Amino acid sequence: MSRDEDRAAADPSMRWNGWGDPAKAKDLPLAVRTLLPLLLGRIRKPQPAVELADVRVEESRATADDLAAFAVAVGADHVDVSPEARIRHAGGRSTPDLLRRREIAQATPDAVIRPADHAEVAACLAISGERGIAVIPFGGGTSVVGALDPERGAHHAVVSLDLRRMTGLLGFDEISGEAVLAAGTSGPEAESLLAARGYELGHYPQSFRYATIGGFAAARSSGQNSAGNGRFDAMVTGIRVATPTGDIELGRSPGSAAGPDLIRVFLGSEGIFGVITEVRVRVHPVPRDRVFESWSFPDFTSGADGLRRVAQHGGGPTVIRLSDEAETAVSLAQVGKIGRALAKGASVVTVYEGEGIAERRARTSALLAAAGGTSSGEGAAEEWLHGRFDGPYLRDSLLDAGVFCETLETATTWANLQHLRTAVEETLKSGFADAGAKSYVMCHVSHIYPTGASLYFTVLAGIRADPLGVWEPVKARVNDAIIAAGGTISHHHAVGRDHAAWLGQEIGDTGVRILRAIKRELDPHGILNPGAVIPEERTV
Amino acid sequence: MSRDEDRAAADPSMRWNGWGDPAKAKDLPLAVRTLLPLLLGRIRKPQPAVELADVRVEESRATADDLAAFAVAVGADHVDVSPEARIRHAGGRSTPDLLRRREIAQATPDAVIRPADHAEVAACLAISGERGIAVIPFGGGTSVVGALDPERGAHHAVVSLDLRRMTGLLGFDEISGEAVLAAGTSGPEAESLLAARGYELGHYPQSFRYATIGGFAAARSSGQNSAGNGRFDAMVTGIRVATPTGDIELGRSPGSAAGPDLIRVFLGSEGIFGVITEVRVRVHPVPRDRVFESWSFPDFTSGADGLRRVAQHGGGPTVIRLSDEAETAVSLAQVGKIGRALAKGASVVTVYEGEGIAERRARTSALLAAAGGTSSGEGAAEEWLHGRFDGPYLRDSLLDAGVFCETLETATTWANLQHLRTAVEETLKSGFADAGAKSYVMCHVSHIYPTGASLYFTVLAGIRADPLGVWEPVKARVNDAIIAAGGTISHHHAVGRDHAAWLGQEIGDTGVRILRAIKRELDPHGILNPGAVIPEERTV
Repeated sequence: MSRDEDRAAADPSMRWNGWGDPAKAKDLPLAVRTLLPLLLGRIRKPQPAVELADVRVEESRATADDLAAFAVAVGADHVDVSPEARIRHAGGRSTPDLLRRREIAQATPDAVIRPADHAEVAACLAISGERGIAVIPFGGGTSVVGALDPERGAHHAVVSLDLRRMTGLLGFDEISGEAVLAAGTSGPEAESLLAARGYELGHYPQSFRYATIGGFAAARSSGQNSAGNGRFDAMVTGIRVATPTGDIELGRSPGSAAGPDLIRVFLGSEGIFGVITEVRVRVHPVPRDRVFESWSFPDFTSGADGLRRVAQHGGGPTVIRLSDEAETAVSLAQVGKIGRALAKGASVVTVYEGEGIAERRARTSALLAAAGGTSSGEGAAEEWLHGRFDGPYLRDSLLDAGVFCETLETATTWANLQHLRTAVEETLKSGFADAGAKSYVMCHVSHIYPTGASLYFTVLAGIRADPLGVWEPVKARVNDAIIAAGGTISHHHAVGRDHAAWLGQEIGDTGVRILRAIKRELDPHGILNPGAVIPEERTV
Repeated sequence: MSRDEDRAAADPSMRWNGWGDPAKAKDLPLAVRTLLPLLLGRIRKPQPAVELADVRVEESRATADDLAAFAVAVGADHVDVSPEARIRHAGGRSTPDLLRRREIAQATPDAVIRPADHAEVAACLAISGERGIAVIPFGGGTSVVGALDPERGAHHAVVSLDLRRMTGLLGFDEISGEAVLAAGTSGPEAESLLAARGYELGHYPQSFRYATIGGFAAARSSGQNSAGNGRFDAMVTGIRVATPTGDIELGRSPGSAAGPDLIRVFLGSEGIFGVITEVRVRVHPVPRDRVFESWSFPDFTSGADGLRRVAQHGGGPTVIRLSDEAETAVSLAQVGKIGRALAKGASVVTVYEGEGIAERRARTSALLAAAGGTSSGEGAAEEWLHGRFDGPYLRDSLLDAGVFCETLETATTWANLQHLRTAVEETLKSGFADAGAKSYVMCHVSHIYPTGASLYFTVLAGIRADPLGVWEPVKARVNDAIIAAGGTISHHHAVGRDHAAWLGQEIGDTGVRILRAIKRELDPHGILNPGAVIPEERTV
């Protein structure tokens, strides 16, 4: 496993109706094909997916004057109303997004605008504000929460503001260990630029190969180096943002008490307050060594207890993740070890990078063993690392085979972890059962904190017809269950439009009023990402 | 040195016109008395300080109806208009505050109100909003940035909302390592409550013995365990706030991406948006071991390079601080080692607590030695720890002796550290020189981050007359210099009223607009802490 794989250039043209590089799409492994009917019953193969050229889009509602104004700002070459460009910017990569991409008629933005720099972004916002055009900021296009839906709000048109021309290392301070990256720089591009200087960012969410630095910041992304350099918000030391009513640059110094930390107003704002154009991040020298170790636990509960001990002790592995019994069984099947697919128990993957690996590993091993874990060598951990960006490809193959597959996630305190996990799992199962579909629910913990952890669920279901219609009420029930069981509505997928209706229950009316007040001040015409994040006003 | 000292009960009646426990006030050490004339020239002993009973206060502007309304909310015993209570709530503990406490006529709040719990705080805010009364939230009274000035704003009266009846451990989750503390709980009270369960918070700012949990949160305090559990904002996992227009509870889970982290809107808000009534914090088992080691460096520059290596490597000491040449010389004199007062060089104190001390110490020692440091045993570090809360007592003695003494602080990136330090030091020296006063400027680094560090300055000056009048323009020039040299206007003292005029240069017009928008939404009548944090609107 080479580090170079982390820095492979992103494929600029992600598959328009699925994940990633079309060349990497693959058939389902034999073992999975064998397992699926056992888990989900008989599955009907769906209609073949629609071809891009056959998709019907509405005529663009952007007027000739609108387009001319944008052309003045960014150049005529970077104002695109072609059906292909509009379809490619029609949404993100949630399963509902991908199901919509299989339909013959699709809602799209009215144009795709590609600014080259901060000033052009600011100019586009000014034009949009004057002309009454909604703007959907677009980075890598990997949102799975509906943040990229082409919603017009109260405006006559909506444009996708594609930031991927804005790439590059704009500043580098080796003494302070900081780099300034243009917001449209993709994960692999950023790591390549930094690696040339011997540094890395070390942020590896599953969307890494496509997602952008600005997107990581706007959505409070969380990487797979979950115990190392996990959360992107903790790496950000400064940002530059263009809002419809003025620019802002934040992050004068580490460790400030100069009023509230306003960087945090923009991290997680998902394009509703402004467009993040530059991000200053903490970087560190590329670690030399990498060590893998896998562990087996009798069950999820003992495994979670082991992870808690590691998190609360500190100074442990760079990556640690725990798969529950259901995920452990399928993962083993997936990598071809069908004979072990019925193995009982929960598995833990650990990866160590950087300094002091021997000490950290010895300490972590003692803690995991004390919780009931048994070391099972390095194989599974290395396999996990190798395939860690490939999950979404497998989903495409499942959808092609007629199997519904989606993921969702939350987080809570250690004390509440089992309660929340059970609540979500039971809601998923009963939701699908009520719709007459068999389902299979897997769960893992990918991110640990001293006070709690994330829970990431993957659900497979054998839905006979109308998967979108079946899923939407199940998803709503799961969101209700997460809130009722004390979880957060998102650990790292963010809010988008899909979770907005639940955010008010998490942050309360006063919290929603704070978001609305900032929105009114910075974006008084409401042109930015209408309908995202902030719950709709209730009309009583 | 016993840990019990950390948990000594706070003295409920801090010296009304100085720092801390009147019984601990002491004369200047002989060595310091010897040094002062050498550094500052001949010093004239000032008039003896005024007695509390002789201070003249204005008649309270709170009406009988106002007081009756508060009495309904909190009980008549907890509405206090006595001159003593009002004078004790007239300000914080900056040097200008203490100089004002030496005057015969003093501005005070019109009443002191002491609510018992969240509901009573909310009731007081409702009464104040209805009746047009400004409210200054008051915790330990240790602000050094004018956050407690009894400013009425546009209102007919101003009350000090003293939160110190609100103490206690309201919740404790040992599994998740979280405790909920009432906002008025003092540092020592919190540590006592947690120690009874084998836990600690580990937050030790210099104000520790008096300051409150709510104050730590509201001002983004930073403790002396600067490389361990340093910044209070990083320990906070949840808050409860009463605002004039509704309550808010935040912090459902660690690691959330449910929109912007609104906890950060209140951390650093210094009572302008609402009153923090409860704080949930991460706690950890009391560490068993503690090891001290001091280091000598040829100069501040090499010492700072050593600290940078330690910060960027990670996993170092719990406390690390570097005193520049001037502070090193005086510190040695202070502890009676006058013979070493002329020693050259800069000194570093390190303290290790918790797990893996031997490894962490070995690693840190190698990094400090590589930067030019020489270990000088444990003595000085242990002495520092012993006296770490006593600095403010020394200031009182200096003021009594007619020596002006004040501190100020900032932070920046490692690359900019020397530039900023020089800019501040030169501005202080030339500022006093222009006023005909000799000065002595000392600097230390007390908080390190991977990307930068704090700078903390102590200045002594021999001002012949009107110390307040001399200091104010010097302080203004220093603030200008900090902004011009790229520093933050405060690393941990916060903004208050003293730094508000500079905040706009740090966060820009758009940043100020965000603060104003939140303020308008939560506190539409502007009753909370008028004039603090947010710069005044400029009337063009």
